[in-house]
Amino acid sequence: MKKVLVLGAGRSSSSLIKYLLKAAAENDYEITVADTSIESVLQKTKKSSRSRPVLLDTHDESKTRAEIERADLVISMLPAFLHSAIAVQCVKFKKNLITASYVSPEMRNLNDGAKKAGIILMNEAGLDPGIDHASAVRIIERIKSAGGKLLAYKSYTGGLIAPESDDNPWGYKFTWNPRNVILAGQETVKYMENGRYAFIPYQKLFTRTENIHFEGLGDFEGYANRDSLSYRSVYGLEDIPTILRGTLRKKGFCEAWNIFVQLGMTDNSYMVPESEKLSICELVESFLPQGKTDVRTRLCQYLEIPLKGDIMSKLEWLGLFGDTRLKMKNASPALLLQAFLESKWKLKEGDIDMIIMQHQFEYELQGKKQKLFSSLVVKGEDAIYTAMAKTVGLPVGIITKLILQGKIKLTGVQTPTVKEIYLPLLDELETLGIRFKEREE
Amino acid sequence: MKKVLVLGAGRSSSSLIKYLLKAAAENDYEITVADTSIESVLQKTKKSSRSRPVLLDTHDESKTRAEIERADLVISMLPAFLHSAIAVQCVKFKKNLITASYVSPEMRNLNDGAKKAGIILMNEAGLDPGIDHASAVRIIERIKSAGGKLLAYKSYTGGLIAPESDDNPWGYKFTWNPRNVILAGQETVKYMENGRYAFIPYQKLFTRTENIHFEGLGDFEGYANRDSLSYRSVYGLEDIPTILRGTLRKKGFCEAWNIFVQLGMTDNSYMVPESEKLSICELVESFLPQGKTDVRTRLCQYLEIPLKGDIMSKLEWLGLFGDTRLKMKNASPALLLQAFLESKWKLKEGDIDMIIMQHQFEYELQGKKQKLFSSLVVKGEDAIYTAMAKTVGLPVGIITKLILQGKIKLTGVQTPTVKEIYLPLLDELETLGIRFKEREE
Repeated sequence: MKKVLVLGAGRSSSSLIKYLLKAAAENDYEITVADTSIESVLQKTKKSSRSRPVLLDTHDESKTRAEIERADLVISMLPAFLHSAIAVQCVKFKKNLITASYVSPEMRNLNDGAKKAGIILMNEAGLDPGIDHASAVRIIERIKSAGGKLLAYKSYTGGLIAPESDDNPWGYKFTWNPRNVILAGQETVKYMENGRYAFIPYQKLFTRTENIHFEGLGDFEGYANRDSLSYRSVYGLEDIPTILRGTLRKKGFCEAWNIFVQLGMTDNSYMVPESEKLSICELVESFLPQGKTDVRTRLCQYLEIPLKGDIMSKLEWLGLFGDTRLKMKNASPALLLQAFLESKWKLKEGDIDMIIMQHQFEYELQGKKQKLFSSLVVKGEDAIYTAMAKTVGLPVGIITKLILQGKIKLTGVQTPTVKEIYLPLLDELETLGIRFKEREE
Repeated sequence: MKKVLVLGAGRSSSSLIKYLLKAAAENDYEITVADTSIESVLQKTKKSSRSRPVLLDTHDESKTRAEIERADLVISMLPAFLHSAIAVQCVKFKKNLITASYVSPEMRNLNDGAKKAGIILMNEAGLDPGIDHASAVRIIERIKSAGGKLLAYKSYTGGLIAPESDDNPWGYKFTWNPRNVILAGQETVKYMENGRYAFIPYQKLFTRTENIHFEGLGDFEGYANRDSLSYRSVYGLEDIPTILRGTLRKKGFCEAWNIFVQLGMTDNSYMVPESEKLSICELVESFLPQGKTDVRTRLCQYLEIPLKGDIMSKLEWLGLFGDTRLKMKNASPALLLQAFLESKWKLKEGDIDMIIMQHQFEYELQGKKQKLFSSLVVKGEDAIYTAMAKTVGLPVGIITKLILQGKIKLTGVQTPTVKEIYLPLLDELETLGIRFKEREE
């Protein structure tokens, strides 16, 4: 009987654990699920006979070590900065490891040790990074092996609210880490377009969106991610003239979000003095020139937006000019804004989320320019088996099974950019409803 | 015979050394001037019999220690980060020290030691900080002792080119550290207005200028400095409703400078890939959306400025759309921009610089609201005895003399915000032509 150890039973582990328990019944696995909250564990293992719930704080090194030692394969769903300490133990005890996080420099350094130990340190096995790699590289290698020459690769991903639960003018609720949404884009964006390096500073980012259409869902807007350039080597596209990765929001979101950016309300670099005393409207006012007209008029004049229009409707819906008090001491503007938005962009009971991803390729084949769009739409089932949990957890689960079945024999630090992983991964994801639709132009 | 040691004979030491040599003749001082370049020393001491030129690298600790030990008073005109190591030696050997730099935390920590040793560690004894403190606090204490209540304090300073040498459309040449000009304002600006905290993010800073008039010179524009709030306690203005400090530029400068800010060309946080290959126009283009129109048209559309107008005239004068190649490897946008501007905003032979400063006070006296403007204009004499060198060096020189004459008896860490220093300092500065003109409203 193969033994799997899952470290972390948080929100993103639900679909993973469900998948693993099903695979356990079919393949005779034991699934140990360990977390600092035994309630979280039991909620997800549902007393399955294949599960072994464990109360574990990974700060307890000896207990963690003992759990790793008795497992055949370890899955770390812990916060990313904890992975490398787990990986060190995995190398020591020769246990395979899977994470859904980017390869850190510390993880990279364990490559030789892992190879010597004959184990795999499988990373980036979730959605983004994860499914994005697998699905993009499959198409890139298909085009290349047909003799095509890649001219452009653009790829956009969004974690959004499903249309049926979309009941606010922003078309947005927090379905994932709010902090990342507030701080998104604060490092200069770098990409490549038509053979030239291109840069977008933060203050311009949300004005430079591209329209991205999804069949049956309508139009979204994509803003560029921080670093697209590193994907050239990851995807074997060293000479591609255009490469850009971005994030998707519902159409109209970015021009309204840009108000917060321009005001300075997403700034996380300083504490607002006496922040506990401020209402949200007073916080807005501290970023506006003072004057005799009311705050709405001054904001619209300052940022050159119409007093009546979509942007102001969105701000009014939030109650940005109201007297909500955040009562947070020593908080940065970003932290105050986050607390305010968390109370507004909260999921209601029954709300379901949605993951959308679109790859856009341009390539030349036999002297003809072609365009290929490959799109993914995944909706959540409910508040537990969300689209985010499914798209992060199912790839991790599938790769776990492929390793335990001996279908992936690679060792060392790996990501799903190699055929031996992405082909069976994408095949099984399709059987689970995670399927890209292609359209040629 | 009192012995003075001047560490550093760079550009900002010229007027100081000239002043000290004159004082030396009158008071029987010996002035040791030490620098890593003996040419710099000799150029400034001019073989005066009162001078003692020394070749010294302060990395040579034992030689530096020996020089400090034989002096009665040490002046550090070295880069600011070197002051605290010198101060430690001054405390050890009980020697007074003067610098023109802000009190660092390390310097602050030497306060008790200096008091025990019976010496003064005199800092912020230059222009800004220095003359700004002395002149502002003199007025503040005058208003307070007349029973006035301060309502607002705003103060602006600029290091500019004198009108007679102003021959470019920017009204600006580098008369001081170019790097500080390029990076100015990148931390969020914090000040207080009408009893409310106010913040300006970088992307808005250069659009929020105030018009500042100087009699006989015309209009300038002031943009706010990073931190005005800390001056409340420094100046004893804890309860003042409005406080703001700023930097002066010639009218029209800021709206044109804002182009570089909006494009992202002042960003110092990353290296431009293959930066050595770029022309200045190609660098500009990397920040613009691509398109079929020419670079000028795209820039004007992107930043919503007229194709023919003052801003574009300034950019054209620089040759921003030309093919100047900077040939710098691994350079940030800010570094590339700095190199480009240094070649354009260079002082010509015969050019003279100018320092302007204006304090604006609002106060209530016997139920009546009053406004007081106090303005300083200092022009350089030539390329050596610049306005910057005079306004930084003369206060240092005067305070040196006052200490040696026993007219300043304070010990510990001090700045020119106390009467015992600012009164005689400002009096003597007036005899040297550094005189504020007041105007009441």
